[in-house]
Amino acid sequence: MSYEERIAQVEQYIDDHLREFLEDLKALCAFPTVAAQGQAIDETAEFTRQLLEKYGFQSDVMPSTGNPMVYGELTGSGDKILLCYNHYDVQPAEPLDLWDSPPFEATERDGKLYARGVVDDKGHIVCRLAAIAALKAVYGELPCSVKILIEGEEEIGSMSMEPFIEQHLELLSGADGCLWEFGGVDYEDRPETVLGMRGDVYVELRARTLAHDAHSGIGGSIFPNAAWRLTWALSTLKGPDERILIPGWYDDVRDPTARELDLLQGTPRTDEALKESFGLDSFLNGVDGVGMKRQQLFEPTCTIAGLGSGYQGPGSKTVLPAEAMAKIDFRIVPDQDPDDLMEKLRAHLKNQGFGDIEVIQHGGSRAARVDPDAPFVQMYVEEAREVYGKEPVIQPTSGGSGPMDPFVRLLGVPIVNVGVGYPHTLVHAPNENMRIADFARGVKLTARMMARMRTA
Amino acid sequence: MSYEERIAQVEQYIDDHLREFLEDLKALCAFPTVAAQGQAIDETAEFTRQLLEKYGFQSDVMPSTGNPMVYGELTGSGDKILLCYNHYDVQPAEPLDLWDSPPFEATERDGKLYARGVVDDKGHIVCRLAAIAALKAVYGELPCSVKILIEGEEEIGSMSMEPFIEQHLELLSGADGCLWEFGGVDYEDRPETVLGMRGDVYVELRARTLAHDAHSGIGGSIFPNAAWRLTWALSTLKGPDERILIPGWYDDVRDPTARELDLLQGTPRTDEALKESFGLDSFLNGVDGVGMKRQQLFEPTCTIAGLGSGYQGPGSKTVLPAEAMAKIDFRIVPDQDPDDLMEKLRAHLKNQGFGDIEVIQHGGSRAARVDPDAPFVQMYVEEAREVYGKEPVIQPTSGGSGPMDPFVRLLGVPIVNVGVGYPHTLVHAPNENMRIADFARGVKLTARMMARMRTA
Repeated sequence: MSYEERIAQVEQYIDDHLREFLEDLKALCAFPTVAAQGQAIDETAEFTRQLLEKYGFQSDVMPSTGNPMVYGELTGSGDKILLCYNHYDVQPAEPLDLWDSPPFEATERDGKLYARGVVDDKGHIVCRLAAIAALKAVYGELPCSVKILIEGEEEIGSMSMEPFIEQHLELLSGADGCLWEFGGVDYEDRPETVLGMRGDVYVELRARTLAHDAHSGIGGSIFPNAAWRLTWALSTLKGPDERILIPGWYDDVRDPTARELDLLQGTPRTDEALKESFGLDSFLNGVDGVGMKRQQLFEPTCTIAGLGSGYQGPGSKTVLPAEAMAKIDFRIVPDQDPDDLMEKLRAHLKNQGFGDIEVIQHGGSRAARVDPDAPFVQMYVEEAREVYGKEPVIQPTSGGSGPMDPFVRLLGVPIVNVGVGYPHTLVHAPNENMRIADFARGVKLTARMMARMRTA
Repeated sequence: MSYEERIAQVEQYIDDHLREFLEDLKALCAFPTVAAQGQAIDETAEFTRQLLEKYGFQSDVMPSTGNPMVYGELTGSGDKILLCYNHYDVQPAEPLDLWDSPPFEATERDGKLYARGVVDDKGHIVCRLAAIAALKAVYGELPCSVKILIEGEEEIGSMSMEPFIEQHLELLSGADGCLWEFGGVDYEDRPETVLGMRGDVYVELRARTLAHDAHSGIGGSIFPNAAWRLTWALSTLKGPDERILIPGWYDDVRDPTARELDLLQGTPRTDEALKESFGLDSFLNGVDGVGMKRQQLFEPTCTIAGLGSGYQGPGSKTVLPAEAMAKIDFRIVPDQDPDDLMEKLRAHLKNQGFGDIEVIQHGGSRAARVDPDAPFVQMYVEEAREVYGKEPVIQPTSGGSGPMDPFVRLLGVPIVNVGVGYPHTLVHAPNENMRIADFARGVKLTARMMARMRTA
């Protein structure tokens, strides 16, 4: 039987057994695994382990420096190994009143399944398992070995991933390719993969100038004001020209390669969709087209993500705040190093006279890049074209961040996105949803990637 | 009978009838008259009117551009008129869990009465009424006429006071002196009056850059960030040297007079008490002693009273905020004009490239100064010395603001503070309280001021 004949049988099996897979997904979505709130972590890890066992894995719940990891191995024929990276934790469901059905009771409406985590990332866990069930049914045996690593802290920064990989290098090494935790189609239903992520340094700055708030009429001209100190400190980090002013911040920035810029050139134009969605007339610095994308994806950023001090209610309150806080989200690019940047930030604040401002680090990761010419990436392009009937979109990098760096740098594995998402999936928002047709296509492409491992 | 013999009888009457006055105060404190929350306004106004009638006033509830005014007149002997300015509204009671007894059930403990508004300002209303009752009992007739104006918006900026006075100039004119709404003793139980207030301009700045918040990984380098725009705009208003940078801001600042500086020299040193209370090693610009007070009371200020944008919860959230808000409390001095300053602020923001930032005004008042050499002030000094047995403290101005300017500028009346407060009265905070002994002394001094009007 040819590869295409067998794959046709696999796809038929997937269509025939879709309801069973969705039942497993609904059961997994019933756990309110909100990492930010420390909810249902151990229960979900154990349930996930059992689910892996049900699909034939040998599976363990393993300790990490944070929430436990679920790890599974399933030995197939041949000597190829596919690694899957996923996470069992989800974003908070709040605001609850904006959900049309309970967030932790997966509900079907109009060909979609609604639940917190139904796509991000429980749908992707079940997607991998469903593909395995179909392949085993048709091939008798899995055409490659599969290792799956499912963390419980993706939504709060994946702080334990790098130390876990360092500690279990032997266990996790040797894979020939990796399916990342997200994936799916773009606005025009084209399959899409990203070959990199930006890194990030996330800090909180805290100014404290007084033992307690003061009346502004008493202290306005004699007491130091925490909100002012924070404002002045922030204004030394970045000016209205959007250039980051911390000395040495750009030292290790690697320019995009010609290959990366080529890839960028091949991606669909998104200017108008972004402008319309966010109510903009133009982008910063007036960029557009490929220039906009280059700025969007290849530049380091310094984003104030939060500000808080004093009175924020209606009308006026005559208070002089003792404390002020800013959250700053720095996105970083190859080859910037989070530890080095933290040192530069601290030194800069001190040099500018703001050594009294406390700097709390909430996260840090390096940027990552996958080789666009890896055979595994080419395999994705060919198989995705078959499943979706459209030419896949290859993004040289995402603007977002994630724990991709230790997979690339420590495990040396090429990575692609095969998944069940679409642009209106509302991950992180109320009414997170998955189109069931996207689930079926995601399972089929996953199965094809596993089947191709044998022939690779 | 001599003045002193009669006043001794008046004071005896006050001591003998203290419980009755306190019952009236308790009844008034039972109304939760929180202006910021629009609570119990009309009920309190009507109850206050009835209370004035009980003490012999002809009284009306009068409309204003905001909450109603309670106005009363009581004709006495002679041709002198004393004006009393008070307010029936109170600060919010929150946080409720920090109160040791219910805020709107006046409760006596250890010689103190606890309730929201027990000092600020309901205690002062009843203080004026108690003095009148005692004087009428001893003198048969009030030794001067009294006009009392009680507003319902002092805690939210007294926005209706100036237009009300303008509209009722004839009714309110002709007074020979005015008792202000607060007063009492300082840290060493010395009676204290202030002969002026700073004015204020209170604004809210709002930046809006996007239709809705964005993911910082998507927008960080291409979308305008409201928190950044606000930060940059704020940093053009005042630098770390504390000098306000808005062109022309200091143009109309009148230097303190030699007489004002003399008065300042005569006030007790407060450096150490302030430093200890607020945990400070030094004041801004390293000032101390009289220099500190001059800076504290005679300089315009620009205080950030509140900042808010994006994510302020624990840990990290990767959001790029569409909106950001700052509350700014400018204190102003003679002869700065709020309308002129608002124009200068708006022009400055526009000139600095921040014309997109919305400026919302929440309040504005001019600074005010009472003539320190007015006979009415001298009368206060003499009578306060008698009641308290200590030399009164004369502050040339308060650092705070209030609606004093229309009383001085439009009605031309000299003003002093005669009251029931003390430094630990906790106005605006939980467990607001009045020492009953301070109430008795405040009533006695009020009665003496009224009695002296006849002989003045």
